[in-house]
Amino acid sequence: MSTSTGTGTPPATTADTDRLWSVDEHLDDILGKLRPLEPIELQLLDAQGCVLVEDVTVPAALPPFDNSSMDGYAVRVADVEGASEEFPAVLTIVGDIAAGSGELPAVGPGEAVRIMTGAPVPPGAEAVVPVEWTDGGTGGGRADAMTAGRPAADGDGPGLGEVRVHRPAAARAHIRDRGSDVGAGEIAVRAGTVLGPSQIGLLAAIGRASVTVRPRPRVVVVSTGSELVPPGEALTAGRIHDSNSFMLTACARDAGAIAYRVGAVDDEPATLRSTLDDQLVRADAVVTSGGVSVGAYDVVKEALSGLTAEEGRVSFRRLAMQPGKPQGFGRIGPDRTPLFALPGNPVSAYVSFELFVRPAVRALMGLPPFGDRRTVRAVCPQGVASSPRGRRQYLRGHYADGRVTTVGGAGSHLVKALADANALIVVPENVTSLAAGAEVDVVLLD
Amino acid sequence: MSTSTGTGTPPATTADTDRLWSVDEHLDDILGKLRPLEPIELQLLDAQGCVLVEDVTVPAALPPFDNSSMDGYAVRVADVEGASEEFPAVLTIVGDIAAGSGELPAVGPGEAVRIMTGAPVPPGAEAVVPVEWTDGGTGGGRADAMTAGRPAADGDGPGLGEVRVHRPAAARAHIRDRGSDVGAGEIAVRAGTVLGPSQIGLLAAIGRASVTVRPRPRVVVVSTGSELVPPGEALTAGRIHDSNSFMLTACARDAGAIAYRVGAVDDEPATLRSTLDDQLVRADAVVTSGGVSVGAYDVVKEALSGLTAEEGRVSFRRLAMQPGKPQGFGRIGPDRTPLFALPGNPVSAYVSFELFVRPAVRALMGLPPFGDRRTVRAVCPQGVASSPRGRRQYLRGHYADGRVTTVGGAGSHLVKALADANALIVVPENVTSLAAGAEVDVVLLD
Repeated sequence: MSTSTGTGTPPATTADTDRLWSVDEHLDDILGKLRPLEPIELQLLDAQGCVLVEDVTVPAALPPFDNSSMDGYAVRVADVEGASEEFPAVLTIVGDIAAGSGELPAVGPGEAVRIMTGAPVPPGAEAVVPVEWTDGGTGGGRADAMTAGRPAADGDGPGLGEVRVHRPAAARAHIRDRGSDVGAGEIAVRAGTVLGPSQIGLLAAIGRASVTVRPRPRVVVVSTGSELVPPGEALTAGRIHDSNSFMLTACARDAGAIAYRVGAVDDEPATLRSTLDDQLVRADAVVTSGGVSVGAYDVVKEALSGLTAEEGRVSFRRLAMQPGKPQGFGRIGPDRTPLFALPGNPVSAYVSFELFVRPAVRALMGLPPFGDRRTVRAVCPQGVASSPRGRRQYLRGHYADGRVTTVGGAGSHLVKALADANALIVVPENVTSLAAGAEVDVVLLD
Repeated sequence: MSTSTGTGTPPATTADTDRLWSVDEHLDDILGKLRPLEPIELQLLDAQGCVLVEDVTVPAALPPFDNSSMDGYAVRVADVEGASEEFPAVLTIVGDIAAGSGELPAVGPGEAVRIMTGAPVPPGAEAVVPVEWTDGGTGGGRADAMTAGRPAADGDGPGLGEVRVHRPAAARAHIRDRGSDVGAGEIAVRAGTVLGPSQIGLLAAIGRASVTVRPRPRVVVVSTGSELVPPGEALTAGRIHDSNSFMLTACARDAGAIAYRVGAVDDEPATLRSTLDDQLVRADAVVTSGGVSVGAYDVVKEALSGLTAEEGRVSFRRLAMQPGKPQGFGRIGPDRTPLFALPGNPVSAYVSFELFVRPAVRALMGLPPFGDRRTVRAVCPQGVASSPRGRRQYLRGHYADGRVTTVGGAGSHLVKALADANALIVVPENVTSLAAGAEVDVVLLD
């Protein structure tokens, strides 16, 4: 059969259309044709959730200097040996070190320096005694806090007084050694790591303001159909609201992409072509919905089936799955931007995104394509009365506690049931029904 | 003991400082003082991830009209009764209905109308036969696709020809009934639902362009410390890079908030106060790090301990946990904006965010505070040599396959180990060591 007899429909040139592709073949074809996005340098917080492509080494040891882990007093060990509340060691306070202090007073015999958490340990000091082990310089009993005896701007001066220390301290007590966190030259974060809050914290701590990562893909979402009206506007006869462009934009973000919703385009191939030409400049991938089946006005198929070699190539094919039988995939434009032409029925579009675009978005980011969804076995108390032979069926389900119930029927227009589902039930190609209580594979959607 | 002897330190007025609070008491105090943010109306895609506060009802049935689930021909059942490939029913094509068509040609006896998926079923038609059950109007064998016989702009005109139908069709075959997805007046999405891609799709499908949800909280992040230098700048003596403001901003986003990193503020109470005054206008919550302990320059404590009743109230307390013993929480400013004063050691700040701020962000969004982290039991092959009596310890761990190993030690400055961890190991208050191979509770961080 040929589809070339009508006006505007290009000849069916590819063998793709002649056979049924399996879900896995289609996915393999997609992933085999994608390359992760080129790395770019991003400010640290812009890189959150992205994959690092460089081994980041530590330029200088962390901590960069010996510092106190407590608010207290830097002392010499011999001076506090045998100290007790009854017989405290009485030391002369010769200085005060806040965190960030540059110039450090030395601690001589019989002397102590007030020191705050994180502040550098001064020369001569061998340990820090926490303020709770002292009288806090008050001459009273056990202290709960340091007094805020800020030194005068011109130096320490007299009047810092004495501190009574109630307990001995071992050498290096309450001192964090230079380099005890990570040493200079060590690898802080390895290439391939996804940057979460703690990795971003470490990178900042070693002084990195920016890092080289694979960016989030920019995904342009276009729905097609002359029947589509934006939500918020009234429907006239034969028209429905555009929902796919909203749903797929949300799907793309959920997968990690930066998504741009273009909205609905009429079933005019020239309009679609010019829209895509305009959008390609900001797209790392394009997702369309609708217009890929065997109808007479299947605009995506019509616009993209007959591209020249220079323009790219999009293959349209039939998949052995339900919903989502008609699919297109290819690469278009000067940068060979991947384009996913999903079917237009909302449930078909959703399932297709989940199976094909989500892994692709992850692959473009340099992430493992399948790392983010859990598939579990579950008991299906109702069973499945019928499933098409030779096609892998994805039914909507509600999963809880090892059991899954189907939600709505197989109809790919049932968006209410889709919104009520939290899982996809996978009925394999060779299974045409499932007995009540059978075990099934379930893809958890949240 | 009093801390009121120094300059600038307000008197310790609250009983909060006199006792050790448990982790749960502190968390209960926080959650008890938070109210979910006031709902606002947001464009559909801006509401992704937010909690709906209204029951959204369906204004008009979905689908809004009987429509075809296939590309094919709308026919009368009697006309195709007994049709076969050998003895096809030959019908006159009297029209063409694309999706979105408003005016519909009626189907009389012996007639058929070409119809595309989603297009309204015309008057007189009782079923749709898919194009694959016909010759597609070509006069040849079985068709794979519809020809693109677009009618002339001025109407159908002559020349639409005939179609041979090879199979009978049952009444209503391949017709999606009006309202078969969801009926007018039904609830589409219930109050309390988190809006994901499929709910957004449904809301668009029923025509909603905007919805009323609780917004994401805007969280302002301020780190404190005169020793802090932004990453990317060189360190001078005694200084370290600011990492907390980056890490906590990333944490806040990860929890669902819109986060604003203000960066580091010096240990000057007046500077901190004016920074907070400036920021409150864009804050639904404030997170500070550092300056909450017993040191002499604990700027957050100093700036916020002695607020007037009009200014708000922030309580500083000691918690029976490690790390994260010193904590502050309160509400400040004219809107009583929640403020979390976290300790400054990076690991302490991270763990504190995880335990206290993350649930609070979720509570502000109207989400269950603890719905997003999994706690599992795991075997700890190394055990834990010592854990402080009377304090709940959160050690960093690496979890895989039911086993967890500690990463780094208990030091709250070990940010490299934190970045290598994917879990927190919980050692209860009454446990001071764990034997090798003991079972522990583990909070999974991803």
